[in-house]
Amino acid sequence: MAEGNWSDMVSSASQVRHSETRGSIDGILAVTKHDMGRVNDLILSMAGSRVDLIPEIANHLISSGGKRLRPMLTIASALAHGYEAGDGHVKLAACVEFMHTATLLHDDVVDESDLRRGKSTARTIWGNQASVLVGDYLLGQAFKMMVEVGSMTALGILSDASAVIAEGEVWQLAAAKKMTTSEADYLAVVDAKTAALFSAAAEVGPVIAGAGEAEREAMRRYGRSLGIAFQLVDDVLDYGGVAADLGKNTGDDFREGKITLPVILAYAKGDEAEKAFWRAAMEEGRNDDDALAEATKLLHRHGALAATTDRARAFGAEAYGAAETLAPSPVREALLDVVEFCIDRIR
Amino acid sequence: MAEGNWSDMVSSASQVRHSETRGSIDGILAVTKHDMGRVNDLILSMAGSRVDLIPEIANHLISSGGKRLRPMLTIASALAHGYEAGDGHVKLAACVEFMHTATLLHDDVVDESDLRRGKSTARTIWGNQASVLVGDYLLGQAFKMMVEVGSMTALGILSDASAVIAEGEVWQLAAAKKMTTSEADYLAVVDAKTAALFSAAAEVGPVIAGAGEAEREAMRRYGRSLGIAFQLVDDVLDYGGVAADLGKNTGDDFREGKITLPVILAYAKGDEAEKAFWRAAMEEGRNDDDALAEATKLLHRHGALAATTDRARAFGAEAYGAAETLAPSPVREALLDVVEFCIDRIR
Repeated sequence: MAEGNWSDMVSSASQVRHSETRGSIDGILAVTKHDMGRVNDLILSMAGSRVDLIPEIANHLISSGGKRLRPMLTIASALAHGYEAGDGHVKLAACVEFMHTATLLHDDVVDESDLRRGKSTARTIWGNQASVLVGDYLLGQAFKMMVEVGSMTALGILSDASAVIAEGEVWQLAAAKKMTTSEADYLAVVDAKTAALFSAAAEVGPVIAGAGEAEREAMRRYGRSLGIAFQLVDDVLDYGGVAADLGKNTGDDFREGKITLPVILAYAKGDEAEKAFWRAAMEEGRNDDDALAEATKLLHRHGALAATTDRARAFGAEAYGAAETLAPSPVREALLDVVEFCIDRIR
Repeated sequence: MAEGNWSDMVSSASQVRHSETRGSIDGILAVTKHDMGRVNDLILSMAGSRVDLIPEIANHLISSGGKRLRPMLTIASALAHGYEAGDGHVKLAACVEFMHTATLLHDDVVDESDLRRGKSTARTIWGNQASVLVGDYLLGQAFKMMVEVGSMTALGILSDASAVIAEGEVWQLAAAKKMTTSEADYLAVVDAKTAALFSAAAEVGPVIAGAGEAEREAMRRYGRSLGIAFQLVDDVLDYGGVAADLGKNTGDDFREGKITLPVILAYAKGDEAEKAFWRAAMEEGRNDDDALAEATKLLHRHGALAATTDRARAFGAEAYGAAETLAPSPVREALLDVVEFCIDRIR
């Protein structure tokens, strides 16, 4: 991955762009609006079942207010390559969202999470058992829809992603709560758990549109880099961003003992006492409010949040460069805006 | 489903068959031996991962001594239709076994089972979390292999089965431990949970061999009916078979509160006191050794085990008739033998 000068690229590129949509997802919402309506209808229909419990649980997650960025990427990347032949992009976008929803259902069981986006998780309402099985059902429905679309290439991309995501989850489980996790280890997990589905979501667009390998590669790179950038920005936001405003951090990752890149970077720069603090916090669960305040102080002292932001910017530059290869169109602008939106979340 | 006269069909058909293999799986073991060696190698290779925990858990299940009947059905049904073009049947057989293994991993989590085939379950050794995620990984690998085979029709059959299995599991979870479960309800669950994968395993054979719709339909019917027969026979064996030998029953289903067909039939024929007994046993968990002895007595009194066996025989006859449509060959004989083996397990 090239360590591009992201700020320079953005400022030069933005001269030819709609300034009112800079750093927002309004552009992608607008260009995908019509097709996302069809995606949403298809999702509701395919989450149906003669077994009432299935739509109950599926709709709990589906209606929980996610941005649906992944299926929007599929729609936008298909449109950016001139797809207009039918509903293949709509079906593949629904597949991507189902794969994501299935992952969330299983993740909440694995992480024993009680809340997601401020709402009770399915497992706390209906139990772990139902969460596991409804996740399996949605995954089966996703593969059925892929078969309907009939593109073996798209099927290959999405089934690869499915195995890679699960492998990344198992790796994280095996390595969880170990402060020996390196930056490379962590990026490999993010690559598998988060970036693989972003990458697949973006790549199936040119595939369904019949575009060539170079176009596929560009969208794969766009999705992957955007996915990593998103996760790294989330990691920073969880500790309140780079401004030293301790009141803003949510600290969810810290309280759950999730070792993210800021923690890995601060640990690497810490003295023996600090290393002992991080081990106690992450490996032994000493993560009360006082510990969170101390952790945030250490992250700022060692510039770990700023350094993580720099890495997010570098991946953002990579995604930006990949989308810049597209022919000029409102969709291209929208995809570029998404990258800026991702990074601009850090204030 | 036709209520065939299974005994008559078997005795007339068996006149032209190898009597030494009657009612055994020796025939299918012999005709699939070479290809099953390749299936086993592929399974070990595809269960591999740079994440050590994955092969550890997968091999725990894969080496646990199952008969591998499902992948054998895929190999045999491909060979029965003249398949010899390549390794497509080997890959599809491995997919079928991976789908089965993934289901077992998730089932054990859902049922909170500690033992399977006398061995500790993966979840008791490695935890629920790893069982969920490794199941997901194996399912992803299965779909990757299907894509390699390149048959969209086979992919459609197996992805349908995947969704149907999960739907059946959710239904069972929602309806679990309710004595209001009807015979039709129960057969619908068996159809989804067990018969769907048997059916898909047998149907992809003619598909990969390029056979027509009539051949596919016969193998689909063979697999489905065999799967239902197998489950019903298992239900009877769990209470010691039809002979009134109380010492032989394992009673696992009873102790786990699993409502199976014998219980549904005995409940339907029971008086109010007996109905109250069944509700206490199944819905409230009063299932100690004394209760098991009482349950077994009631099952015999109402002929529930014999009636379940009759239904198993009828499904066996359906499977038998479907395999009889095959052209004469050792593989056809082997597929017929499997049906007899299934039923003959009841003594």
